[in-house]
Amino acid sequence: MATDRQATARAHSNIAFIKYWGNVDDDLRLPANPSISMNLDALYTETTVTWDDSLSADMLRLNDQPESGGALERVSRHLDIVRQRLNISASARVASRNNFPMGAGIASSASAFAALTLAAVTAGGATLSERELTTLARRGSGSASRSIPAGFVQWEAGIDHETSYAHSVAAPEHWDLTDIVAIVSADHKAVGSTHGHTSAGTSDLQAGRLRGASARLEAVRQAIASRDFRAFAETVEHDSNLMHAVMMTSRPPLFYWHPASLTLMGAVRQWRAEGLDVCYTLDAGPNVHCICTTAHAPEVRRRLEALDIAAEGMIDILQAGVGGGAQVLD
Amino acid sequence: MATDRQATARAHSNIAFIKYWGNVDDDLRLPANPSISMNLDALYTETTVTWDDSLSADMLRLNDQPESGGALERVSRHLDIVRQRLNISASARVASRNNFPMGAGIASSASAFAALTLAAVTAGGATLSERELTTLARRGSGSASRSIPAGFVQWEAGIDHETSYAHSVAAPEHWDLTDIVAIVSADHKAVGSTHGHTSAGTSDLQAGRLRGASARLEAVRQAIASRDFRAFAETVEHDSNLMHAVMMTSRPPLFYWHPASLTLMGAVRQWRAEGLDVCYTLDAGPNVHCICTTAHAPEVRRRLEALDIAAEGMIDILQAGVGGGAQVLD
Repeated sequence: MATDRQATARAHSNIAFIKYWGNVDDDLRLPANPSISMNLDALYTETTVTWDDSLSADMLRLNDQPESGGALERVSRHLDIVRQRLNISASARVASRNNFPMGAGIASSASAFAALTLAAVTAGGATLSERELTTLARRGSGSASRSIPAGFVQWEAGIDHETSYAHSVAAPEHWDLTDIVAIVSADHKAVGSTHGHTSAGTSDLQAGRLRGASARLEAVRQAIASRDFRAFAETVEHDSNLMHAVMMTSRPPLFYWHPASLTLMGAVRQWRAEGLDVCYTLDAGPNVHCICTTAHAPEVRRRLEALDIAAEGMIDILQAGVGGGAQVLD
Repeated sequence: MATDRQATARAHSNIAFIKYWGNVDDDLRLPANPSISMNLDALYTETTVTWDDSLSADMLRLNDQPESGGALERVSRHLDIVRQRLNISASARVASRNNFPMGAGIASSASAFAALTLAAVTAGGATLSERELTTLARRGSGSASRSIPAGFVQWEAGIDHETSYAHSVAAPEHWDLTDIVAIVSADHKAVGSTHGHTSAGTSDLQAGRLRGASARLEAVRQAIASRDFRAFAETVEHDSNLMHAVMMTSRPPLFYWHPASLTLMGAVRQWRAEGLDVCYTLDAGPNVHCICTTAHAPEVRRRLEALDIAAEGMIDILQAGVGGGAQVLD
């Protein structure tokens, strides 16, 4: 096995239409339900990994800043998994950079751990199947498994490490959707997703959310297959509401919505009632992802910008189409 | 049975700590779970009923305005139940008045149907047990059953008309609590409670809410008995969150929270963390009921008033202590 080798990989962020919330195995990050998402072409992480026998410990630079503490520790734990798989003993230099603003409140762990996994494996001289890459990426961050394949991606819940993998259900070109992200807060999350997943089971409502998850996923998969925006929209919003209902009823409760989130959710529902192909979904944070057909994206964006931004608490807007899979650069 | 007789009754509004949401029998208004509340001394309805053989149909005045259509129809249907019970054939003149502003967004159906029931029964010359009055009032509006007994009141879910009754669990003097109501909107509800109750079963989460309802009610009942505000507060907020989680995940979803509701809920949680004895609960509307010990009420009110009212979307503040039961006047 080659060491002292280097590779760079790029992976896109993704937005889930059927959400991942709660694990059946926190260590393996085996999710309590399958999920489905699309990659976001304009939002990505590029990561270079250099295996270096002369290092005494892993080193990490994030957006050109040296990192220690929690961030380095989490990367190092993930590198341990790659080291074990590839039989590498060296430490690594890792340099990672997001093309989206760090403070924008956009989750970076999916793109970060997908890029890290692909770069670390490639730098180690191995060529693994896409399926195995998704399972390795999952160990770093569950949703990272969905940032490995291209386009619209389904992550099977599975029953163990090997069966909990992600795969593309449609190529990026299949359906021309756009995610217009209304950035409501740049704050770091009060409660990160990793901790949140462990709290999902404390809600009396999680079982009810899980019971219908496979049926909702199938509805979204079929809506994607047939490009049926109306069917897609109802289920996507419903699934987001279900996840936040579970969050708000966990012990202690997790409230991710800001007042402006609620305003924007109401506006999006109203716009759809008026005929626009747009729906909302929110991850574990206050930002409102407005998923729309690209044909309707200019009008959605116009209406978002026409809202009184200061009054509504919206501080920025990002926009992305459907993205490809993780790839090795140069 | 006497006819052409008149009586006036007063009944207080109430605020539920464990919520009523969803029926097992919509016609009988048999609730899916038991609930518990306190009456609100400062908010009440006074209703005069006159049985009059010379009338060809029931007549209704609400706050001095003659009413027809839906409001009259609902009152008339309730009078049918009283007519049947008391074997009355006459129609009635009904004059009802709330002492709180009509447009304040405060639910009036609980106090209205409790006062209507007691006035109609008394004018009919009958003296029924408190228990039977609560079951009759329930037929007009479920929560009206809780406005018949005094103080802190529990409404048993029951299995039929006779067993679904309300009773006092503590007198008004038992615990000196105050409800400071932050009025966020004076709008009439987009979806009234009666319709909402029938939609509760469309949420995948209602079963999970119901499964724990009796345990939560017991926790609140014990917290009231021992005047344990901290235990009370956690369960009351949790139960409110659970009901709104069910609402938001019904098909179609019911969103009662306004952005200002979310702001106020966060402020109340923060104030309690800082040591104030206060918690929130919201009915099927955006107004935030801040339940506090009366000792802490002035500070809670001061902080509410110190919020930038225009920016937070709060338009008024009402305040009430623990109220007595429905009573016949003069």
